[in-house]
Amino acid sequence: MFVLSEFRLAVIQLQVTGVKADNLSRARRLVKEAAGQGSRLVLLPECFNSPYGTSFFSTYAERIPGESTQVLSEAARENQVYLVGGSIPEEDDGKLYNSCTVFGPNGELILKHRKIHLFDIDIPGKIRFQESEILSPGNSLSMFDTAFCKVGVGICYDMRFAELAQLYSRKGCQLLVYPGAFNMTTGPAHWELLQRGRALDNQVYIATASPARDETASYVAWGHTARVIVIKPFFPDLQYLAGVRQQIPITAQRRDDLYTVTSVQEGSS
Amino acid sequence: MFVLSEFRLAVIQLQVTGVKADNLSRARRLVKEAAGQGSRLVLLPECFNSPYGTSFFSTYAERIPGESTQVLSEAARENQVYLVGGSIPEEDDGKLYNSCTVFGPNGELILKHRKIHLFDIDIPGKIRFQESEILSPGNSLSMFDTAFCKVGVGICYDMRFAELAQLYSRKGCQLLVYPGAFNMTTGPAHWELLQRGRALDNQVYIATASPARDETASYVAWGHTARVIVIKPFFPDLQYLAGVRQQIPITAQRRDDLYTVTSVQEGSS
Repeated sequence: MFVLSEFRLAVIQLQVTGVKADNLSRARRLVKEAAGQGSRLVLLPECFNSPYGTSFFSTYAERIPGESTQVLSEAARENQVYLVGGSIPEEDDGKLYNSCTVFGPNGELILKHRKIHLFDIDIPGKIRFQESEILSPGNSLSMFDTAFCKVGVGICYDMRFAELAQLYSRKGCQLLVYPGAFNMTTGPAHWELLQRGRALDNQVYIATASPARDETASYVAWGHTARVIVIKPFFPDLQYLAGVRQQIPITAQRRDDLYTVTSVQEGSS
Repeated sequence: MFVLSEFRLAVIQLQVTGVKADNLSRARRLVKEAAGQGSRLVLLPECFNSPYGTSFFSTYAERIPGESTQVLSEAARENQVYLVGGSIPEEDDGKLYNSCTVFGPNGELILKHRKIHLFDIDIPGKIRFQESEILSPGNSLSMFDTAFCKVGVGICYDMRFAELAQLYSRKGCQLLVYPGAFNMTTGPAHWELLQRGRALDNQVYIATASPARDETASYVAWGHTARVIVIKPFFPDLQYLAGVRQQIPITAQRRDDLYTVTSVQEGSS
């Protein structure tokens, strides 16, 4: 297998509205644009086909495969990219999940990650949100191989849990992707710090994608910019990463005789 | 036991020279000053009685108890503070360690932590340092109880290893202290980020103390300020911490059914 040491990755900060068809066509158009700029892996935001909120999930939920994942599959195939399809509300057997699907350059579904840490927080006077009132959690770690490197997937609140990133890194991932929709309270406080911390501790690249900020939405995503659709390309350089890991060799220096991080169970959800 | 929810903690950024007696008397004076300002727990920097460098460790090394720890014990007792005595080069049975001693308000030695992750890095053109050429590592986690909260101890490079902080937090520590001497390469890159990341991921307070920067030293510590002796008091507020842990309850939300961080062995070094 030919492995590029450097490849272009696009993070799409998508404007999400209440009209699913518009969200899907907008995503499709931007994936094409990113691919046209040379991106080989494209990341969409959490809940990219539906407004984010417990009152919306059941209305917008789909089975997988379904309408939205069909669009993702075609967008991946037409543009020959790895497409991490943010997340969508998924319905399966009477339960709802917050699910990320990943498609390969041939349009094949190569992964489904169901958010394993549901977003339940309660900061008085700021924000209360309880995904668990509506959603069920996934029960699996989720990694996929690309022509470039192995990639680990989490969704939003999953990023708060250091153990997930540690396991992905130990299992060989060099890039972790987190579609996410932090809010106006936790966004400025933690969104960037979590990404930088995960990257430093695990010596991996981190990519995140948020819906664009929409001050009229019931849940205002922190995003990065206000109401602007942004495609951010960056170049994970695996050779540089190998150098860093050699210079500050914390992986080899871990005291596995003193502590360990282990996954209790594995499988596919 | 009466537990203060808020208490004053002092971090002493000490100027360290080649004259051990001066380092000790300076430390003693500043501990007294910090206590006079109301501090109940005082933290000294890594290698506070000796220049930092593999060529110095054997010359400055002491047994424990010894001259330096005697001064620490008296300073703790005279000022009735918990004193985390940074670290000193320790000699024991023909081996050298980088060791932190902690004294209680009665002057009793309540903990000894030997740095468990030795500082071996090699960044071409920037810095190469190999503590392991001279030092042996400790083999134990190190926590102590105070009248305020449980405290976990690491030394400098120990802070890079997320697992140590995770275990301390899981075992009930609400404050982690890291005497450290990051340098002019890793300091600006990682010193603050590591502290903020550990605090966020584990919902604990973090306190660090560095030697003051001395541009004439063979190893230039990042410190925070150039050649200035600083006492930084801050107030860990345990009630506030409990609130944060309730609002964003990641401890309860951890997926212990999916992953776990465990200590392989425990004991006292």
